[in-house]
Amino acid sequence: MIDQRALPSRFEVIVLSTPAAVAGAIRDMVVRGAPAIGVSAAFGIALAAFQSKAVDLDSLRQELRQAGVLLNAARPTAVNLSWAVARMLALAGEPADSVDALRDKLSKAAQSMADADIATNRRMAAFGAELIDDGDTIIHHCNTGALATVDWGTALGAIRTAHESGKKIHVLVDETRPRLQGMRLTAWELSQYGISYEIISDNSAGYFLRSGKVQKVFFGADRVAANGDVVNKVGTYMLALAAWTSHVPVYSVFPISTVDLSLANGDLIQIEERGADEVLDIQVHGQVAAPIGAKARNPAFDITPHQYLTALVTDAGIIQPPFFDNLSKAVL
Amino acid sequence: MIDQRALPSRFEVIVLSTPAAVAGAIRDMVVRGAPAIGVSAAFGIALAAFQSKAVDLDSLRQELRQAGVLLNAARPTAVNLSWAVARMLALAGEPADSVDALRDKLSKAAQSMADADIATNRRMAAFGAELIDDGDTIIHHCNTGALATVDWGTALGAIRTAHESGKKIHVLVDETRPRLQGMRLTAWELSQYGISYEIISDNSAGYFLRSGKVQKVFFGADRVAANGDVVNKVGTYMLALAAWTSHVPVYSVFPISTVDLSLANGDLIQIEERGADEVLDIQVHGQVAAPIGAKARNPAFDITPHQYLTALVTDAGIIQPPFFDNLSKAVL
Repeated sequence: MIDQRALPSRFEVIVLSTPAAVAGAIRDMVVRGAPAIGVSAAFGIALAAFQSKAVDLDSLRQELRQAGVLLNAARPTAVNLSWAVARMLALAGEPADSVDALRDKLSKAAQSMADADIATNRRMAAFGAELIDDGDTIIHHCNTGALATVDWGTALGAIRTAHESGKKIHVLVDETRPRLQGMRLTAWELSQYGISYEIISDNSAGYFLRSGKVQKVFFGADRVAANGDVVNKVGTYMLALAAWTSHVPVYSVFPISTVDLSLANGDLIQIEERGADEVLDIQVHGQVAAPIGAKARNPAFDITPHQYLTALVTDAGIIQPPFFDNLSKAVL
Repeated sequence: MIDQRALPSRFEVIVLSTPAAVAGAIRDMVVRGAPAIGVSAAFGIALAAFQSKAVDLDSLRQELRQAGVLLNAARPTAVNLSWAVARMLALAGEPADSVDALRDKLSKAAQSMADADIATNRRMAAFGAELIDDGDTIIHHCNTGALATVDWGTALGAIRTAHESGKKIHVLVDETRPRLQGMRLTAWELSQYGISYEIISDNSAGYFLRSGKVQKVFFGADRVAANGDVVNKVGTYMLALAAWTSHVPVYSVFPISTVDLSLANGDLIQIEERGADEVLDIQVHGQVAAPIGAKARNPAFDITPHQYLTALVTDAGIIQPPFFDNLSKAVL
């Protein structure tokens, strides 16, 4: 996979040959983005099958379950991860002729999940692109492009599809502290696609939204509750709130598999808190910015209550409020 | 003055001997914070008087006006700067016995402005400290401490006074992108004072505010309009909006001289947009974060509409809504 930590300075591809290596890559954010994490985990299970020395199906299935525990623990918030692991383990539990047959089946399943992700992205991007008008300035949070998915992207995919259809778009790229996925990855992707952009600090989005010069806000979702509350990269909530306050439409773009109908609302979702070093390890003019011994808090996600969202864009179509009713219909 | 760009790595004091050097220090943010800028500009005018080779009062006054133009142009947003320059030039315009007498008068006026700033800070800090309860967790934006003023501070001064009175306080320090005044300066000051703190990314404030674990939000002000709209460091608006939405009280602390009754509302205030390099010049793990050739927007301030503020804390007391009526009374 592409080592996203090295971008935009270096484009590096690394090879992972064990499920532990895949879990480590997910935990350390070599790969990130909910759809990309899900498919990576599926390949992690397939790798476990190939790497296994098991000679009978029961032992193999036992090892696959262990790999599943390892992969699930890598990032707690993204539902795509546990969804992909559960789906692979369910396939592994079905009757099989032999150990080799099961290995083959899991390998094909992971590849088909990857192919399906691209098709899903293209579909939701087409729906999302309908919401974008020629001449729009759009604020985008985090990275939701090809790097966050298997290919094409979710929210950034919609922008890309609109751009390819000839619409002139300008993107204000939220830098997305602390890991700067916007500044590092989204800006890099936009420059590859020839889409006009400027980077802004996350905390200036409100200034631009109040100026009347922003027409839309787009971001992805890591997990969506039954009522339409969106858990996404930290900063999404303040951005959506400021956009809603300035009557700027807010769209969250995600595969319908991101919806978890078992969760009544977003506040029931466990928010991953990552290490303080991600906040503190920042240099300005080559100089360490935090005092020695400084402490930091680092929630990786936040919860955007559904009332601040204009519509949800999925591969099953654009979902309008009331989200509770319309999400259930789309999922079931 | 203390070179704030070197903190927290190094504590460096630099000597400025010309008004042009003072203007440069204001522009380059060697010194920052509205009150500190104002007093620095006053000393800039005094320096112009001492540096001048003028032998008659008219020539001296002409040079002082030129220095005033230079100093006023250094930062466009802070009202304290133009206020201090105007006050010094008004003093210079009064009848004087000799060039030396005027030099002496301006020097004393600048020093008395510095002394008055400390007294003003102590007074508003005492009012602000009344609003802080034992056990409070407070989100603070930018730097408003001793470094932003001549001494003690405005919003951070209130926290410091509350701390010295024995109240246990925990501060969540907004890092304050792009120049990280929170991470670099406020965290450093809090560690000097022995006040408990943790640094957070600006965009995570909404998450903490929604958690119910934050009791107050405090920040300063660079300029306040007649209706109570507050122009302050970029990010203030999104923070205040998120706090207001979560019913967390929001306080802006500033000397009453920051109020500009000639401005009906904050949207009439010109917002300084600084260079893109301040956003882009950031390294993570020692690695440049933005793609080569990336562009950025960098508004230095934003406007917080008065409806998101619980009260305004000044040296003339705590001002409650309706701000238009009560600010006028306090200023006039």
